[in-house]
Amino acid sequence: MGGDLGPRATVWGTAEALLVHPELEACLYGPLDMLEAELARLPRRLHGVGSRLLPSHAPRIIPQDMKPSSALRAARDSSLALMLEDVASGRAAAGVSAGNTGALMALSRRALGTVAGIPRPAISTAIPTQGGGRCYMLDMGANIEASAQRLVEFALMGSVMARQVDGLARPRVALLNVGVEATKGTASVRQADARLRDMPEINYIGFVEGDGVFNGSADVVVCDGFVGNIVLKASEGLARMLVERVQATFDAHWGSRLVSWLARPALHRVKRRLDPVRYNGASLLGLAGIVIKSHGRADAQGFACAVSRAVQEVRMNLPEHLERELGQRSAIASIACGRRDSGFPTRSQSQDFNPER
Amino acid sequence: MGGDLGPRATVWGTAEALLVHPELEACLYGPLDMLEAELARLPRRLHGVGSRLLPSHAPRIIPQDMKPSSALRAARDSSLALMLEDVASGRAAAGVSAGNTGALMALSRRALGTVAGIPRPAISTAIPTQGGGRCYMLDMGANIEASAQRLVEFALMGSVMARQVDGLARPRVALLNVGVEATKGTASVRQADARLRDMPEINYIGFVEGDGVFNGSADVVVCDGFVGNIVLKASEGLARMLVERVQATFDAHWGSRLVSWLARPALHRVKRRLDPVRYNGASLLGLAGIVIKSHGRADAQGFACAVSRAVQEVRMNLPEHLERELGQRSAIASIACGRRDSGFPTRSQSQDFNPER
Repeated sequence: MGGDLGPRATVWGTAEALLVHPELEACLYGPLDMLEAELARLPRRLHGVGSRLLPSHAPRIIPQDMKPSSALRAARDSSLALMLEDVASGRAAAGVSAGNTGALMALSRRALGTVAGIPRPAISTAIPTQGGGRCYMLDMGANIEASAQRLVEFALMGSVMARQVDGLARPRVALLNVGVEATKGTASVRQADARLRDMPEINYIGFVEGDGVFNGSADVVVCDGFVGNIVLKASEGLARMLVERVQATFDAHWGSRLVSWLARPALHRVKRRLDPVRYNGASLLGLAGIVIKSHGRADAQGFACAVSRAVQEVRMNLPEHLERELGQRSAIASIACGRRDSGFPTRSQSQDFNPER
Repeated sequence: MGGDLGPRATVWGTAEALLVHPELEACLYGPLDMLEAELARLPRRLHGVGSRLLPSHAPRIIPQDMKPSSALRAARDSSLALMLEDVASGRAAAGVSAGNTGALMALSRRALGTVAGIPRPAISTAIPTQGGGRCYMLDMGANIEASAQRLVEFALMGSVMARQVDGLARPRVALLNVGVEATKGTASVRQADARLRDMPEINYIGFVEGDGVFNGSADVVVCDGFVGNIVLKASEGLARMLVERVQATFDAHWGSRLVSWLARPALHRVKRRLDPVRYNGASLLGLAGIVIKSHGRADAQGFACAVSRAVQEVRMNLPEHLERELGQRSAIASIACGRRDSGFPTRSQSQDFNPER
């Protein structure tokens, strides 16, 4: 039910994803009449997947502007809550939503719990980089402030994801900072830098500055959610402005209408690429289950990408890898410190994760 | 002597600026042989301004990677220090440098002091926005962490600058945050938000998210230097990536070489606009004198823009306005709080500022 474009983008986008993944079935959550109305309007080319789209009645919708605390108190028959219930019970292998991010995060934590005692998941999204690669950036806004320990956890989670989901042997992990020297930045990034240098399980490459997000020098870029969210949204804003300017430059300076007309399809492709974030789902990383947030502005094609992201994470069994690698780390940290409240959470704190589910 | 492109960009750029501003004379600081070598190579069209370019021998150069603390301890005969000495003595009306930002900031503070007891200047630069406008963003990296009070000072300084230098009647001032609701963000942005709402002298419009930097909704966007620096550098990185992709899209998809050839001049123009930050000088705002930092990557044209920025600030007598408006505010705050250490610095703390200079 979420997203700025309403349920059509979600329903049609899910159908698009089913076309790509013949092994997939998808449950749709929302008021039955709304779901059936959208299903009845599916374009002809998507009719073939209709039998794998399973509408599931949810009488309520969590509004876009509802606070997470209110969402937690709200009745449990919203489309978001019922979807997460099915992920928690194992009826669904993963959940995808374009709705209220704060509510999705809060309800996901309650329904699924986290792995390896992670107190709060991070939001991670793949950013396209120069040279055609991509870079996972996290956190994108779930953790407004992040201690050194949280930053280290983000680095670990990002590294596991890039290794397991993308198959990189030694993903290059960097901390976002205002300079590359060890003396630069806030206390938490400096402390996290020192800790990461001592962790052989991470291919830590040190600090990167803002351009390191896009220039292809790192596979994982770690920051707190305040910085990550602002960088992400500033990038979207800049991309929109640049598209406007490219268009204006062409319109203003090319006498020939023919050339402007010829340029249109290329500009259209560029426009899509300029706003790449909209076309990738964001992972709620650290949950004991797979939940993908699709961009609120995503169209059907964008939502289909988010569903595909969920499929990838299910195939690679990402939460199980996170639990194993972060849990191990917790155990080592506990032994090294000789006490249970070592700063790193211990495996026993994450009882609600069951990899067999 | 500073800048990635060496003294040529600085010397030629200064000459370009003299061409635009016939009332201007410029002192150049550096090893005399290097200055004279560049002056001898000035392109013919710049020969006319040669008599207004005054080389001033400075035997030392502050290296790009020298720490601010080392720069402060270094001998006082560097090009940076001698330039600032001339600004402090009034021989020069403003200083412009493409060199080491940290050293420039530290030496400027020592040589010039600050207005109205501002503990440390902020770096501000004009960002081009959608619709052809611009937005001052500050701080861009001088203050890694900023209390609510510092953010309020940045808002005041940005507002005074947009009003006095750009002639905006009521510049719209916003705080950068991860959401627009009062409950969002870190403690310091929330406290600054509450204070700014009580200040009738500022046209405060509340929080903006990252896209607010580029979408034209604010004339001044305030943030701490950690976020500002990362957003600025991420934007530069994104712009570079997008130029690469626009070019690649044209090259890959357009069969016709003719069209690609026709597109070249337009793309070149876009390229310049895509990297706008490089073409604006950054103001060290809050100094009791005018100092402009030109982007390290600026070419001669970019350096000329930074010189023009300095000319504008001199014309509008920016430090005097800052001293008057912030000093007034300090006085009010002192009375309101009934003590001198009211949190807001008092006017008497800034003895080293002399508006008559």
